[in-house]
Amino acid sequence: MNALKQAIMSRGKAIGTDIIKVDMFLNHRIDTALLAEMGNEFARRFKDDRVDTILTIEASGIAVAVTVAQALGNVPIVFAKKGETRNVNGEMYTAKVYSFTHQKENTIRVCREYLNPESRVLIIDDFLANGEAVQGLISLCRQAGAEVVGVGICVEKGYQPGGKRLREAGLHVESLAIVDAVEDGKIILREDD
Amino acid sequence: MNALKQAIMSRGKAIGTDIIKVDMFLNHRIDTALLAEMGNEFARRFKDDRVDTILTIEASGIAVAVTVAQALGNVPIVFAKKGETRNVNGEMYTAKVYSFTHQKENTIRVCREYLNPESRVLIIDDFLANGEAVQGLISLCRQAGAEVVGVGICVEKGYQPGGKRLREAGLHVESLAIVDAVEDGKIILREDD
Repeated sequence: MNALKQAIMSRGKAIGTDIIKVDMFLNHRIDTALLAEMGNEFARRFKDDRVDTILTIEASGIAVAVTVAQALGNVPIVFAKKGETRNVNGEMYTAKVYSFTHQKENTIRVCREYLNPESRVLIIDDFLANGEAVQGLISLCRQAGAEVVGVGICVEKGYQPGGKRLREAGLHVESLAIVDAVEDGKIILREDD
Repeated sequence: MNALKQAIMSRGKAIGTDIIKVDMFLNHRIDTALLAEMGNEFARRFKDDRVDTILTIEASGIAVAVTVAQALGNVPIVFAKKGETRNVNGEMYTAKVYSFTHQKENTIRVCREYLNPESRVLIIDDFLANGEAVQGLISLCRQAGAEVVGVGICVEKGYQPGGKRLREAGLHVESLAIVDAVEDGKIILREDD
C-alpha cells in the first residue's frame, strides 16, 4: 500500500538490523488520515470474507481496528487484554504469548461472550514479526469455535518467520507493507504486492 | 448524550455500589456505530477550541480518540504508554498515576517530540473516576508547555471526585454520561446535561 510505504520510507527510522521505528505515525503518535486509508485498504482486501468481528490486541492494534471496522460497515471490535487476571468460573478464553521485544510471556484474554462459534473473525494488528501475538489471537478464536477468515497487518517484518508460518498454515494474510531487511540504518521494503 | 446513556441503561451492568461494567460496548468489545456517534459529539462540544492534538492513554481511550480525531478533521492522536521503560537521554515526559482499580502506581510516558509548546491538546478517555489518569496526562502536557483546551470523557463516575477536581481547576470537562450512583445493581444516571 503506497501511502504506508511512503510514510515508512520518509518518516520511519531503522535501528540496527532489526528495529523499525514508526511511532511517529503508527504506534505512539497516530496519523489519522493514514489510519483511515489503511482501514479502507484492509476492507478492500477482505471485502468478500463476510467479516462480522474484528479481533485485535491492546494497545497499538486498536486504532487500526477502528478504521477497518468502519470501512467494513461498523462491525464490532473485540480487543484482547493483556496481563493476568482472575478467571472466575472460566469466563475467559486465554492464551500465552511470548514477547520477544519485552522478553517475557504474557497472558492474553477475551471474555467468552464476545467470541462465539458463528463469528467470522478478521484479526488486525500493527506489526507482525515472529507472529506470537497473532498465534495467541488465533488460539482464542479456536477455543471459541470461531472462524479466522483473515489476518491484516500494517507492517510485516519479512525477515522474521511469523508471516511465513501463518501463510503455510493456510491463513489469508494481508500485510500493507513488508520490510525485507533493516541494513545500515536503512529500511528495505518489498516491492511486489 | 442519549445514545450512550441508552447503551449504559440497556446493556451496562452495575456491580455492587461502585463498578459500572460497559465492556460489552466500550472497553473490551466496541460498538463502532456508537463509537462514531461519541466522536461526533465530542467534536461538537470542542469545535471552537482549535484542537490540534488528541491525547489519550492506552488502551481503552484509543478507540474513542480515533473517532474524535476524525470528527475534528483528522488531527493527530498521541497515546501515552504505561509501564516503566528506559528513559534514555530524558527523551520522554513521564508522570506517576495511581490506579485504584489495580491498586498500584503506574508510570505513563510520552515522547517529547510528540507534544510541544504550541500544541492545543484535547484529552480523551473512556472513564473518569478519581481522575488520576487525566491528572497524569495533564502533567505530561504541562511538562511540554502545551495547552490543555479540554477533557472529554465517555463515562464519568459522578460519585467520585475526579470530575469535580478538574472543573474546580478551571478545566473544560465534557462527560457524555455521568453516573450519580450505583445502587442495588442499578445504574443511576444524571439527568441534566
